[in-house]
Amino acid sequence: MRTSIATVCLSGTLEEKIHACAEAGFDGIEIFEQDLLVSPRSPEQIRMLADELGLSLDLYQPFRDFEGVTEDLLEANLYRAEAKFKLMNLLGIGTVLLCTNVATATIDDDELAAAQLQRLADLAARYSVRIAYEALAWGKYVNDFEHAWRIADLVDRPNFGTCLDSFHILSRNWDPSGIEKIPAEKIFFVQLADAPRMSMDVLSWSRHHRVFPGEGDFALAQFMGHLVRAGYNGPVSLEIFNDIFRQTDEKRTAVDAMRSLIWLEEQTHLHLQDTEGPGFSYPMELATLPKVDDPTGFNFTEVKAEHTGAVQELLYQLGFGYAGRHRTKPVQLWTQGQARVVINEQQARNLEPSIAALGFDVENPVVAASRAVQLKAQPVPRQSQADEEVLQAVSAPDSTEVFLCEASADGTAAWTREFTPESGAPEHAAGDPTAELITRVDHVNLSQPWQHYDEAVLFYESTLSLARQPSTEVPSPLGLVRSQVMRTEDRGIRLALNVAPMALEHPTAASSYPAHVAFACTDLIAVARRALARGLDFLPVPANYYADLQARFRLDEQLLDTLQRYNLLYDRDEDGEFLHFYTATVGNVFFEVVERRGGYDGYGAPNTPVRLAAQYERSRREQD
Amino acid sequence: MRTSIATVCLSGTLEEKIHACAEAGFDGIEIFEQDLLVSPRSPEQIRMLADELGLSLDLYQPFRDFEGVTEDLLEANLYRAEAKFKLMNLLGIGTVLLCTNVATATIDDDELAAAQLQRLADLAARYSVRIAYEALAWGKYVNDFEHAWRIADLVDRPNFGTCLDSFHILSRNWDPSGIEKIPAEKIFFVQLADAPRMSMDVLSWSRHHRVFPGEGDFALAQFMGHLVRAGYNGPVSLEIFNDIFRQTDEKRTAVDAMRSLIWLEEQTHLHLQDTEGPGFSYPMELATLPKVDDPTGFNFTEVKAEHTGAVQELLYQLGFGYAGRHRTKPVQLWTQGQARVVINEQQARNLEPSIAALGFDVENPVVAASRAVQLKAQPVPRQSQADEEVLQAVSAPDSTEVFLCEASADGTAAWTREFTPESGAPEHAAGDPTAELITRVDHVNLSQPWQHYDEAVLFYESTLSLARQPSTEVPSPLGLVRSQVMRTEDRGIRLALNVAPMALEHPTAASSYPAHVAFACTDLIAVARRALARGLDFLPVPANYYADLQARFRLDEQLLDTLQRYNLLYDRDEDGEFLHFYTATVGNVFFEVVERRGGYDGYGAPNTPVRLAAQYERSRREQD
Repeated sequence: MRTSIATVCLSGTLEEKIHACAEAGFDGIEIFEQDLLVSPRSPEQIRMLADELGLSLDLYQPFRDFEGVTEDLLEANLYRAEAKFKLMNLLGIGTVLLCTNVATATIDDDELAAAQLQRLADLAARYSVRIAYEALAWGKYVNDFEHAWRIADLVDRPNFGTCLDSFHILSRNWDPSGIEKIPAEKIFFVQLADAPRMSMDVLSWSRHHRVFPGEGDFALAQFMGHLVRAGYNGPVSLEIFNDIFRQTDEKRTAVDAMRSLIWLEEQTHLHLQDTEGPGFSYPMELATLPKVDDPTGFNFTEVKAEHTGAVQELLYQLGFGYAGRHRTKPVQLWTQGQARVVINEQQARNLEPSIAALGFDVENPVVAASRAVQLKAQPVPRQSQADEEVLQAVSAPDSTEVFLCEASADGTAAWTREFTPESGAPEHAAGDPTAELITRVDHVNLSQPWQHYDEAVLFYESTLSLARQPSTEVPSPLGLVRSQVMRTEDRGIRLALNVAPMALEHPTAASSYPAHVAFACTDLIAVARRALARGLDFLPVPANYYADLQARFRLDEQLLDTLQRYNLLYDRDEDGEFLHFYTATVGNVFFEVVERRGGYDGYGAPNTPVRLAAQYERSRREQD
Repeated sequence: MRTSIATVCLSGTLEEKIHACAEAGFDGIEIFEQDLLVSPRSPEQIRMLADELGLSLDLYQPFRDFEGVTEDLLEANLYRAEAKFKLMNLLGIGTVLLCTNVATATIDDDELAAAQLQRLADLAARYSVRIAYEALAWGKYVNDFEHAWRIADLVDRPNFGTCLDSFHILSRNWDPSGIEKIPAEKIFFVQLADAPRMSMDVLSWSRHHRVFPGEGDFALAQFMGHLVRAGYNGPVSLEIFNDIFRQTDEKRTAVDAMRSLIWLEEQTHLHLQDTEGPGFSYPMELATLPKVDDPTGFNFTEVKAEHTGAVQELLYQLGFGYAGRHRTKPVQLWTQGQARVVINEQQARNLEPSIAALGFDVENPVVAASRAVQLKAQPVPRQSQADEEVLQAVSAPDSTEVFLCEASADGTAAWTREFTPESGAPEHAAGDPTAELITRVDHVNLSQPWQHYDEAVLFYESTLSLARQPSTEVPSPLGLVRSQVMRTEDRGIRLALNVAPMALEHPTAASSYPAHVAFACTDLIAVARRALARGLDFLPVPANYYADLQARFRLDEQLLDTLQRYNLLYDRDEDGEFLHFYTATVGNVFFEVVERRGGYDGYGAPNTPVRLAAQYERSRREQD
């Protein structure tokens, strides 16, 4: 598949954009006219730069609102078009994009539009330019791709074809299977965009909220399937208008963009295998990625800190046992059931306790890591001794290290053998192996910087096959927190990505959105009792909360008393019940313990505002 | 008018919110239940705190989705309601808000809904609670206020009435004049919200984009007029769900909120005077503000800097003359025509040149300042000698000082007499008074922090009667810039407020959105020629821009050459032409010179991306 991207997707100057696209590995680019007009570099210089970097210049988009107009307007449009065709000759770009008229058209007549477009096509032919005519979703008279194609067919010129844009087709819910009826040689260009489903006017939706494939809700592998079946074999180009991508580092955005196409190429291949069988042949070559199964569970979580005492104490209070120090590295291991927490003091100067790494159980770590690297994930360099387990790791967009670990049937992890309990046990080393109430990690909750949120979603979706669940917004004293759960189908991995509000003026903002690990247990009240006996500092839950709980659920008095005594939170739905509590925050991390009863599948979302407010109250108090 | 505000409008804890409301001068507050549930303070403590601060607790909003349900659900709802009525007795709140059912209603039957609400009313009566029933714009069966009132009428209980919310009425374009048909004693409560007109689903619009009155597009003075005519005299309460207000300093937001009600009160008074005449009497008392005419022009602009040489040089190159130093302050004055620039070195250590103050010509500065202060603007403390002009100034939300200056018929300013040219003229003091091509300030363009944008709009609207024009979005290499022009009807004042993208990762972001002053002139080419002769560093305009200009406008070659030689930009519309150029940026400020030909009324918006890109290119180069 030939990959391309429009310069409008990225921030920076045209030169910076071109460099970023080349570094990310695109085959070509579309020049968005605005980017050229504001550039001090001449068309010839741009052509030379792209050439040096091995990028083809696939498309130019210099004007709109051409057809369906009065004769004097048409004449002005042709004048302008000719100037642009000359410019395209300087740039060496052979295809021009022409969108259906949204503004100046006054005559709703396909024959007339086609006749006017014929004049444009004949003019373009003099400059060896092909015209790709595209229906905008909000075109005045022409807003669906089949209508645009009918007009292109009427134009009937070899250098006049159509451009298909997934946004303009899928946003309006046009049936994309009609693509297969268009002759392949008449599909001059394809633009791809994903978008979250939103109910707003389609123009604003398109101009601000497009995202890269895999980051939104459109069925793009199916869309691509229609193109492949139609016999299309040209560039597949990203044209993403997104307020955030426009203002973030262009190099990162270009990598995110490239990842989306690599992933979509694989998804398209899988979709075609499903629908057409393996023998189906088509002109477009679709590269695939190493196939991996879903990860089955968290292998470990790693907390990094200069001073580890407070984290050790929390783990001890939660019933974790000290499994020892690593033979060669300044790293401790604490375990309970299949929950493993690594505490890492390596290169942690001045670092408050923070989640630094997550280990995922996978079938084959080397294959999984190779897949991630092909998806442009950055490998984490690791040193290991000859007799140690070689661990595979890549860096997530927020710099969390993602380890791909070998899953074992009995739930153990081979690398734990490198830890020796004898050497220098910390104060609270005495675990309680007779009462391993905590069994595993239920979920992990990471704060994401707002500018890398979409990138993070695609990263976890493409490298670890985590599927996005519906996102929610949770009120906190510092603003709304957007929460996006991603998980495997069997719930072995549940990962929540949170985007916190900026709250620039609140001095406590930075520390108010710590990450956390939630452990699953079989008996939450027993875990809480033990923790209280060991002096755990529970996050306090206000009395007003329990009064409301009673009004909502009519809990029996004894349960309500128990919940309140241990600062436990409660939720219930048709499928079951959820009990949980939070520890105090240490640095940038805290822990949660949860008990799922029956088929409860959520995360106690109604209780999250209570947690956020309690954490805010605490951070205010510590500040005073 | 009794003023009130819902705690959901503000950030922080319930206690912080209550303090902020009291400090801003509200009469009462609505407690949003979530704020109470997450608070560690008991209902009694909240009641006591409000009491101490002199705030009434006007409304509680503990549940939704009551009526139109099956009997067993109704029974659970009554159980929950009774718990909440008990809680309201502890809080000392007498009115509960009940929104029409959006989620659980399954029976579309007004008689049944009324019968179920009767049972709720009778239960509430036992706790002396009144119920204010409000139609939500997205209510399942009841979504307009007249329907809700018909049901309230059927309920027919003295403690059952209606609540009217401007958002739910105006967002759906219901005719608000129906309000006048509702008996005054049955309007239990009024909630006010403004909002920008947006075409998106009404729920998202309501939950994220409400703003304070005067910051959106709703005709709220007219809305209030209907309420006053209906005889309503209860609290007028703000219930604003806004993503930005939720995350900004609650004290500022509360002041912004209070300003909106003070302004709306005046606007309502003026509206009723217009429609009913001065003799009209009604129960609601409406306070007014000192009446002022529109400001007629910019009296001066002030640039503050530690090192003033570069600004002086720019002014000299633009043809300004040095009018001297202030008698007692480290301040210089440069003038040309009626354009006056004050350069201030006072307390400017380490300060890059920045726009620090704007002077506005007003009829009566003392009255205008008093009005601004009544609108909660912060006065700027000023020291002046006995024989000096006493200048009135208040602080705008971005800390720019707004001076209210006496306008004189001949365009001079009395305070300029305090400047004496004799003492220590700087290097470039030789102005060119024979060629005062620049006549006045055309417009000023200020960058606004995103979190204070709505506040700034209301500030200029209420204190200086500037009217918002349609806002635009301009692409820059660091993201979209939102631009909002505000002006007086006669264009004497044109002020553009710009919200820049955050571009946190771009090292040049901070300096890429300087403010600027645009001077009007009678002959731009002559100004440019003189400036070039004096060595002005023009902001360079790329050749690609001129090629496009030619394609768009077919300019004659000579004009095009002249434009390109002097780095001039050009725009044209049906009403006239616009020529302009920009200087290099010095610190956080640059200058523009514009020539309006014919009736051109814009700002060369198509050229702004060219300017932003050129400034970005420069800042990148300076960085390298």
